[in-house]
Amino acid sequence: MTSLGEYALLDQSWHDVVPDAARRMLIAAAQAFADKGYHATTTRDIAARAGMSPAAVYIHYRSKEDLLFQISRIGHERSLKVLTGVQDPDPVDRMARTVASFARWHAEFRTTARVVQYELGALSPEHHAVVAELRRKIETHVRSMVEEGVRSGAFTVPDLKGTSLAVLSLCIDVARWYRPDGTRTPEQIGSLYADLVLRMLRTP
Amino acid sequence: MTSLGEYALLDQSWHDVVPDAARRMLIAAAQAFADKGYHATTTRDIAARAGMSPAAVYIHYRSKEDLLFQISRIGHERSLKVLTGVQDPDPVDRMARTVASFARWHAEFRTTARVVQYELGALSPEHHAVVAELRRKIETHVRSMVEEGVRSGAFTVPDLKGTSLAVLSLCIDVARWYRPDGTRTPEQIGSLYADLVLRMLRTP
Repeated sequence: MTSLGEYALLDQSWHDVVPDAARRMLIAAAQAFADKGYHATTTRDIAARAGMSPAAVYIHYRSKEDLLFQISRIGHERSLKVLTGVQDPDPVDRMARTVASFARWHAEFRTTARVVQYELGALSPEHHAVVAELRRKIETHVRSMVEEGVRSGAFTVPDLKGTSLAVLSLCIDVARWYRPDGTRTPEQIGSLYADLVLRMLRTP
Repeated sequence: MTSLGEYALLDQSWHDVVPDAARRMLIAAAQAFADKGYHATTTRDIAARAGMSPAAVYIHYRSKEDLLFQISRIGHERSLKVLTGVQDPDPVDRMARTVASFARWHAEFRTTARVVQYELGALSPEHHAVVAELRRKIETHVRSMVEEGVRSGAFTVPDLKGTSLAVLSLCIDVARWYRPDGTRTPEQIGSLYADLVLRMLRTP
Protein backbone atom coordinates (compact mmCIF):
# COMPACT_ATOMS: atom_id res chain seq x y z
CA MET A 1 0.00 0.00 0.00
CA THR A 2 2.72 2.46 0.94
CA SER A 3 5.92 2.96 -0.98
CA LEU A 4 9.28 2.47 0.62
CA GLY A 5 10.48 5.56 -1.19
CA GLU A 6 8.17 7.76 0.82
CA TYR A 7 9.29 6.24 4.09
CA ALA A 8 12.93 6.69 3.25
CA LEU A 9 12.14 10.36 2.65
CA LEU A 10 10.02 10.47 5.77
CA ASP A 11 12.81 9.08 7.79
CA GLN A 12 15.04 11.92 6.65
CA SER A 13 12.38 14.53 7.08
CA TRP A 14 11.46 13.43 10.61
CA HIS A 15 14.99 13.36 11.91
CA ASP A 16 13.97 15.62 14.79
CA VAL A 17 12.10 12.71 16.40
CA VAL A 18 14.51 11.11 18.86
CA PRO A 19 15.46 8.52 19.92
CA ASP A 20 15.55 6.21 16.92
CA ALA A 21 12.97 3.84 18.44
CA ALA A 22 10.43 6.66 18.81
CA ARG A 23 10.92 7.66 15.17
CA ARG A 24 10.60 4.06 13.93
CA MET A 25 7.32 3.73 15.85
CA LEU A 26 5.95 6.94 14.39
CA ILE A 27 6.73 5.78 10.86
CA ALA A 28 5.23 2.34 11.58
CA ALA A 29 2.09 4.02 12.95
CA ALA A 30 1.73 6.27 9.88
CA GLN A 31 2.02 3.20 7.61
CA ALA A 32 -0.51 1.21 9.64
CA PHE A 33 -3.03 4.10 9.83
CA ALA A 34 -2.70 4.62 6.06
CA ASP A 35 -3.24 0.93 5.30
CA LYS A 36 -6.04 0.01 7.73
CA GLY A 37 -7.32 3.30 9.10
CA TYR A 38 -6.75 4.65 12.62
CA HIS A 39 -9.63 2.81 14.30
CA ALA A 40 -8.68 -0.63 12.95
CA THR A 41 -5.03 -0.31 13.99
CA THR A 42 -3.87 -1.57 17.38
CA THR A 43 -0.70 -0.56 19.23
CA ARG A 44 0.24 -4.25 18.81
CA ASP A 45 0.13 -3.81 14.98
CA ILE A 46 2.32 -0.74 15.26
CA ALA A 47 4.85 -2.47 17.49
CA ALA A 48 5.00 -5.46 15.11
CA ARG A 49 5.65 -3.20 12.11
CA ALA A 50 8.37 -1.39 14.04
CA GLY A 51 9.90 -4.74 15.11
CA MET A 52 9.39 -3.98 18.80
CA SER A 53 7.39 -5.36 21.70
CA PRO A 54 3.91 -3.93 22.36
CA ALA A 55 5.11 -2.64 25.74
CA ALA A 56 7.90 -0.66 24.05
CA VAL A 57 5.30 1.62 22.43
CA TYR A 58 4.32 2.97 25.85
CA ILE A 59 7.87 3.98 26.69
CA HIS A 60 7.63 6.69 24.03
CA TYR A 61 3.90 7.35 23.56
CA ARG A 62 0.99 7.53 25.96
CA SER A 63 -1.49 5.88 23.57
CA LYS A 64 -2.38 5.16 19.96
CA GLU A 65 -4.05 8.58 19.89
CA ASP A 66 -0.78 10.16 21.04
CA LEU A 67 0.96 8.58 18.02
CA LEU A 68 -1.70 10.01 15.70
CA PHE A 69 -1.32 13.40 17.35
CA GLN A 70 2.47 13.40 16.87
CA ILE A 71 2.07 12.42 13.20
CA SER A 72 -0.56 15.11 12.72
CA ARG A 73 1.40 17.81 14.56
CA ILE A 74 4.69 17.07 12.77
CA GLY A 75 2.89 16.74 9.40
CA HIS A 76 1.19 20.12 9.83
CA GLU A 77 4.39 21.75 11.07
CA ARG A 78 6.31 20.44 8.03
CA SER A 79 3.63 21.60 5.66
CA LEU A 80 3.64 25.07 7.28
CA LYS A 81 7.42 25.12 6.88
CA VAL A 82 7.16 24.22 3.18
CA LEU A 83 4.62 27.04 2.71
CA THR A 84 6.59 29.70 4.55
CA GLY A 85 10.00 28.55 3.30
CA VAL A 86 9.81 30.40 -0.01
CA GLN A 87 11.24 33.91 0.16
CA ASP A 88 10.65 36.09 -2.88
CA PRO A 89 10.05 39.84 -2.98
CA ASP A 90 7.68 39.48 -5.97
CA PRO A 91 4.20 38.27 -4.88
CA VAL A 92 3.56 36.47 -8.17
CA ASP A 93 6.84 34.56 -8.15
CA ARG A 94 6.45 33.85 -4.46
CA MET A 95 2.98 32.37 -5.01
CA ALA A 96 4.16 30.28 -7.96
CA ARG A 97 7.15 28.87 -6.10
CA THR A 98 5.13 28.23 -2.94
CA VAL A 99 2.34 26.38 -4.79
CA ALA A 100 4.95 24.33 -6.69
CA SER A 101 6.64 23.25 -3.43
CA PHE A 102 3.39 22.64 -1.58
CA ALA A 103 1.80 20.52 -4.35
CA ARG A 104 5.05 18.59 -4.80
CA TRP A 105 5.24 17.92 -1.06
CA HIS A 106 1.73 16.45 -1.12
CA ALA A 107 2.73 14.07 -3.94
CA GLU A 108 5.92 12.97 -2.17
CA PHE A 109 4.39 12.60 1.29
CA ARG A 110 0.95 11.46 0.15
CA THR A 111 0.60 8.63 2.70
CA THR A 112 1.36 10.84 5.67
CA ALA A 113 -0.69 13.68 4.22
CA ARG A 114 -3.71 11.38 3.89
CA VAL A 115 -3.46 10.21 7.51
CA VAL A 116 -3.05 13.81 8.66
CA GLN A 117 -6.03 15.06 6.60
CA TYR A 118 -8.47 12.15 6.91
CA GLU A 119 -8.05 11.15 10.58
CA LEU A 120 -8.54 14.58 12.19
CA GLY A 121 -11.79 13.37 13.73
CA ALA A 122 -9.93 10.76 15.82
CA LEU A 123 -7.87 13.35 17.76
CA SER A 124 -8.80 14.16 21.35
CA PRO A 125 -10.32 17.65 21.83
CA GLU A 126 -7.04 18.94 23.38
CA HIS A 127 -4.91 17.57 20.54
CA HIS A 128 -7.44 18.70 17.94
CA ALA A 129 -7.13 22.26 19.27
CA VAL A 130 -3.34 22.21 18.78
CA VAL A 131 -3.69 20.95 15.20
CA ALA A 132 -6.54 23.40 14.47
CA GLU A 133 -4.23 26.26 15.45
CA LEU A 134 -1.59 25.01 12.97
CA ARG A 135 -4.29 24.75 10.29
CA ARG A 136 -5.33 28.34 10.97
CA LYS A 137 -1.69 29.44 10.52
CA ILE A 138 -1.51 27.57 7.20
CA GLU A 139 -4.72 29.20 5.97
CA THR A 140 -3.65 32.65 7.18
CA HIS A 141 -0.32 32.34 5.41
CA VAL A 142 -1.90 31.48 2.05
CA ARG A 143 -4.47 34.25 2.49
CA SER A 144 -1.75 36.80 3.26
CA MET A 145 0.14 35.79 0.09
CA VAL A 146 -3.02 36.30 -1.97
CA GLU A 147 -3.67 39.64 -0.23
CA GLU A 148 -0.14 40.81 -0.97
CA GLY A 149 -0.70 40.08 -4.66
CA VAL A 150 -4.03 41.93 -4.59
CA ARG A 151 -2.37 44.96 -2.95
CA SER A 152 0.35 44.98 -5.61
CA GLY A 153 -2.30 44.91 -8.35
CA ALA A 154 -1.05 41.57 -9.74
CA PHE A 155 -4.01 39.54 -8.40
CA THR A 156 -7.75 40.17 -8.51
CA VAL A 157 -9.90 37.62 -6.67
CA PRO A 158 -13.66 37.28 -6.28
CA ASP A 159 -13.62 36.11 -2.62
CA LEU A 160 -10.29 36.39 -0.78
CA LYS A 161 -10.93 33.75 1.87
CA GLY A 162 -12.73 31.29 -0.39
CA THR A 163 -10.11 31.61 -3.13
CA SER A 164 -7.23 31.10 -0.67
CA LEU A 165 -8.96 27.98 0.64
CA ALA A 166 -9.37 26.70 -2.93
CA VAL A 167 -5.63 27.16 -3.62
CA LEU A 168 -4.77 25.19 -0.49
CA SER A 169 -7.37 22.52 -1.26
CA LEU A 170 -6.11 22.01 -4.82
CA CYS A 171 -2.58 21.29 -3.52
CA ILE A 172 -3.68 19.09 -0.60
CA ASP A 173 -5.83 16.87 -2.82
CA VAL A 174 -2.72 15.86 -4.79
CA ALA A 175 -2.13 13.45 -1.87
CA ARG A 176 -5.38 11.65 -2.71
CA TRP A 177 -4.91 11.10 -6.44
CA TYR A 178 -1.14 11.04 -6.97
CA ARG A 179 0.35 7.65 -7.95
CA PRO A 180 4.13 7.16 -8.19
CA ASP A 181 3.57 5.06 -11.34
CA GLY A 182 1.56 7.84 -13.03
CA THR A 183 2.71 9.97 -15.94
CA ARG A 184 3.75 13.06 -13.95
CA THR A 185 6.57 13.48 -11.44
CA PRO A 186 5.93 15.49 -8.25
CA GLU A 187 8.02 18.31 -9.82
CA GLN A 188 5.86 18.35 -12.97
CA ILE A 189 2.68 18.48 -10.88
CA GLY A 190 4.18 21.35 -8.89
CA SER A 191 4.94 23.41 -11.97
CA LEU A 192 1.55 22.69 -13.61
CA TYR A 193 -0.22 23.71 -10.39
CA ALA A 194 1.84 26.90 -10.05
CA ASP A 195 0.68 27.84 -13.55
CA LEU A 196 -3.00 26.97 -12.86
CA VAL A 197 -3.06 28.90 -9.58
CA LEU A 198 -1.57 32.00 -11.17
CA ARG A 199 -4.30 31.81 -13.82
CA MET A 200 -6.89 31.67 -11.02
CA LEU A 201 -5.45 34.70 -9.24
CA ARG A 202 -4.05 37.02 -11.89
CA THR A 203 -5.64 40.32 -12.79
CA PRO A 204 -7.05 39.85 -16.31
CA MET B 1 -19.92 12.80 12.99
CA THR B 2 -22.43 12.68 10.15
CA SER B 3 -25.33 15.03 9.74
CA LEU B 4 -28.87 13.74 9.53
CA GLY B 5 -29.50 16.26 6.76
CA GLU B 6 -27.15 14.45 4.44
CA TYR B 7 -28.75 11.11 5.15
CA ALA B 8 -32.21 12.46 4.50
CA LEU B 9 -30.90 13.65 1.14
CA LEU B 10 -29.13 10.35 0.60
CA ASP B 11 -32.27 8.47 1.24
CA GLN B 12 -33.97 10.44 -1.53
CA SER B 13 -31.06 10.17 -3.85
CA TRP B 14 -30.66 6.41 -3.45
CA HIS B 15 -34.29 5.57 -4.01
CA ASP B 16 -33.28 3.05 -6.67
CA VAL B 17 -31.96 0.72 -3.98
CA VAL B 18 -34.78 -1.69 -3.15
CA PRO B 19 -36.16 -3.09 -0.96
CA ASP B 20 -36.25 -0.57 1.89
CA ALA B 21 -34.15 -2.80 4.16
CA ALA B 22 -31.32 -2.96 1.61
CA ARG B 23 -31.33 0.84 1.31
CA ARG B 24 -31.33 1.32 5.09
CA MET B 25 -28.34 -1.01 5.38
CA LEU B 26 -26.41 0.82 2.71
CA ILE B 27 -26.98 4.14 4.46
CA ALA B 28 -26.01 2.62 7.82
CA ALA B 29 -22.83 1.20 6.24
CA ALA B 30 -21.88 4.57 4.70
CA GLN B 31 -22.35 6.23 8.11
CA ALA B 32 -20.30 3.57 9.91
CA PHE B 33 -17.46 3.61 7.33
CA ALA B 34 -17.33 7.41 7.54
CA ASP B 35 -17.20 7.39 11.35
CA LYS B 36 -14.78 4.50 12.03
CA GLY B 37 -13.26 3.63 8.68
CA TYR B 38 -14.02 0.51 6.61
CA HIS B 39 -11.60 -1.84 8.38
CA ALA B 40 -12.82 -1.04 11.90
CA THR B 41 -16.49 -1.52 11.00
CA THR B 42 -18.15 -4.93 11.41
CA THR B 43 -21.35 -6.13 9.74
CA ARG B 44 -22.69 -6.31 13.30
CA ASP B 45 -22.13 -2.50 13.67
CA ILE B 46 -23.93 -1.92 10.38
CA ALA B 47 -26.87 -4.10 11.36
CA ALA B 48 -27.15 -2.33 14.73
CA ARG B 49 -27.21 1.10 13.05
CA ALA B 50 -29.86 -0.08 10.63
CA GLY B 51 -31.90 -1.56 13.51
CA MET B 52 -31.68 -5.09 12.08
CA SER B 53 -30.18 -8.43 13.05
CA PRO B 54 -26.62 -9.25 11.88
CA ALA B 55 -28.00 -12.14 9.82
CA ALA B 56 -30.32 -9.77 7.93
CA VAL B 57 -27.30 -8.09 6.32
CA TYR B 58 -26.50 -11.31 4.43
CA ILE B 59 -29.97 -11.47 2.89
CA HIS B 60 -29.11 -8.40 0.81
CA TYR B 61 -25.29 -8.29 0.65
CA ARG B 62 -22.66 -10.96 0.31
CA SER B 63 -20.17 -9.25 2.65
CA LYS B 64 -19.02 -5.99 4.19
CA GLU B 65 -16.93 -5.48 1.04
CA ASP B 66 -20.05 -5.88 -1.07
CA LEU B 67 -21.67 -3.03 0.89
CA LEU B 68 -18.62 -0.84 0.26
CA PHE B 69 -18.73 -1.75 -3.42
CA GLN B 70 -22.43 -0.81 -3.72
CA ILE B 71 -21.79 2.53 -1.98
CA SER B 72 -18.80 3.17 -4.22
CA ARG B 73 -20.59 2.15 -7.42
CA ILE B 74 -23.72 4.15 -6.68
CA GLY B 75 -21.65 7.15 -5.49
CA HIS B 76 -19.59 7.16 -8.69
CA GLU B 77 -22.67 6.66 -10.87
CA ARG B 78 -24.42 9.61 -9.18
CA SER B 79 -21.38 11.79 -9.54
CA LEU B 80 -21.12 10.89 -13.25
CA LYS B 81 -24.81 11.76 -13.61
CA VAL B 82 -24.27 15.15 -11.96
CA LEU B 83 -21.36 15.83 -14.35
CA THR B 84 -23.16 14.77 -17.52
CA GLY B 85 -26.54 16.20 -16.49
CA VAL B 86 -25.77 19.75 -17.62
CA GLN B 87 -26.76 20.43 -21.21
CA ASP B 88 -25.59 23.72 -22.65
CA PRO B 89 -24.51 24.46 -26.21
CA ASP B 90 -21.92 26.99 -25.00
CA PRO B 91 -18.75 25.25 -23.70
CA VAL B 92 -17.99 28.05 -21.21
CA ASP B 93 -21.49 28.08 -19.70
CA ARG B 94 -21.57 24.31 -19.71
CA MET B 95 -18.27 24.13 -17.80
CA ALA B 96 -19.40 26.78 -15.29
CA ARG B 97 -22.71 25.05 -14.60
CA THR B 98 -21.12 21.60 -14.41
CA VAL B 99 -18.43 22.71 -11.95
CA ALA B 100 -21.05 24.50 -9.83
CA SER B 101 -23.20 21.34 -9.63
CA PHE B 102 -20.27 19.01 -9.06
CA ALA B 103 -18.68 21.12 -6.28
CA ARG B 104 -22.09 21.60 -4.65
CA TRP B 105 -22.75 17.85 -4.77
CA HIS B 106 -19.46 17.19 -2.97
CA ALA B 107 -20.46 19.61 -0.18
CA GLU B 108 -23.94 18.09 0.19
CA PHE B 109 -22.84 14.46 0.01
CA ARG B 110 -19.47 14.92 1.72
CA THR B 111 -19.73 11.84 3.98
CA THR B 112 -20.52 9.47 1.15
CA ALA B 113 -17.97 11.17 -1.10
CA ARG B 114 -15.26 10.66 1.52
CA VAL B 115 -16.03 6.95 1.90
CA VAL B 116 -16.10 6.57 -1.88
CA GLN B 117 -12.79 8.42 -2.36
CA TYR B 118 -10.79 7.26 0.65
CA GLU B 119 -11.70 3.56 0.84
CA LEU B 120 -10.95 2.59 -2.78
CA GLY B 121 -8.04 0.44 -1.56
CA ALA B 122 -10.43 -1.85 0.36
CA LEU B 123 -12.33 -2.99 -2.75
CA SER B 124 -11.67 -6.47 -4.18
CA PRO B 125 -9.78 -6.46 -7.51
CA GLU B 126 -13.01 -7.30 -9.43
CA HIS B 127 -14.98 -4.54 -7.76
CA HIS B 128 -12.09 -2.12 -8.06
CA ALA B 129 -12.08 -2.69 -11.82
CA VAL B 130 -15.78 -1.74 -12.07
CA VAL B 131 -15.22 1.46 -10.08
CA ALA B 132 -12.03 2.28 -12.01
CA GLU B 133 -14.05 2.15 -15.24
CA LEU B 134 -16.55 4.67 -13.80
CA ARG B 135 -13.65 6.88 -12.71
CA ARG B 136 -12.23 6.77 -16.25
CA LYS B 137 -15.63 7.87 -17.60
CA ILE B 138 -15.71 10.77 -15.13
CA GLU B 139 -12.20 11.87 -16.14
CA THR B 140 -12.96 11.47 -19.85
CA HIS B 141 -16.10 13.56 -19.53
CA VAL B 142 -14.29 16.47 -17.85
CA ARG B 143 -11.47 16.24 -20.37
CA SER B 144 -13.91 16.32 -23.29
CA MET B 145 -15.56 19.45 -21.87
CA VAL B 146 -12.18 21.16 -21.61
CA GLU B 147 -11.30 20.00 -25.16
CA GLU B 148 -14.55 21.38 -26.50
CA GLY B 149 -13.71 24.78 -24.99
CA VAL B 150 -10.20 24.63 -26.46
CA ARG B 151 -11.62 23.82 -29.92
CA SER B 152 -14.04 26.75 -29.69
CA GLY B 153 -11.15 29.06 -28.78
CA ALA B 154 -12.66 29.95 -25.39
CA PHE B 155 -10.13 27.91 -23.38
CA THR B 156 -6.34 27.66 -23.59
CA VAL B 157 -4.74 25.11 -21.27
CA PRO B 158 -1.11 24.19 -20.61
CA ASP B 159 -1.67 20.41 -20.22
CA LEU B 160 -5.11 19.09 -21.18
CA LYS B 161 -5.08 15.92 -19.10
CA GLY B 162 -3.39 17.45 -16.05
CA THR B 163 -5.65 20.51 -16.09
CA SER B 164 -8.80 18.37 -16.37
CA LEU B 165 -7.62 16.29 -13.43
CA ALA B 166 -7.02 19.48 -11.41
CA VAL B 167 -10.59 20.71 -12.11
CA LEU B 168 -12.00 17.40 -10.92
CA SER B 169 -9.69 17.33 -7.89
CA LEU B 170 -10.64 20.86 -6.81
CA CYS B 171 -14.34 19.90 -6.73
CA ILE B 172 -13.84 16.50 -5.07
CA ASP B 173 -11.76 17.97 -2.24
CA VAL B 174 -14.76 20.09 -1.18
CA ALA B 175 -15.96 16.87 0.52
CA ARG B 176 -12.88 16.94 2.77
CA TRP B 177 -13.04 20.54 4.02
CA TYR B 178 -16.72 21.51 3.78
CA ARG B 179 -18.51 22.00 7.11
CA PRO B 180 -22.28 22.64 7.24
CA ASP B 181 -21.68 25.22 9.99
CA GLY B 182 -19.15 27.15 7.85
CA THR B 183 -19.73 30.54 6.25
CA ARG B 184 -20.56 29.31 2.73
CA THR B 185 -23.54 27.29 1.51
CA PRO B 186 -22.99 24.48 -1.03
CA GLU B 187 -24.52 26.81 -3.67
CA GLN B 188 -22.07 29.61 -2.84
CA ILE B 189 -19.13 27.21 -3.07
CA GLY B 190 -20.45 25.99 -6.41
CA SER B 191 -20.62 29.48 -7.87
CA LEU B 192 -17.19 30.51 -6.50
CA TYR B 193 -15.65 27.34 -7.96
CA ALA B 194 -17.31 27.87 -11.35
CA ASP B 195 -15.69 31.31 -11.43
CA LEU B 196 -12.25 30.01 -10.34
CA VAL B 197 -12.28 27.16 -12.87
CA LEU B 198 -13.20 29.50 -15.75
CA ARG B 199 -10.26 31.70 -14.74
CA MET B 200 -8.00 28.62 -14.88
CA LEU B 201 -9.23 27.64 -18.35
CA ARG B 202 -10.05 30.82 -20.22
CA THR B 203 -7.97 32.11 -23.08
CA PRO B 204 -6.27 35.25 -21.77
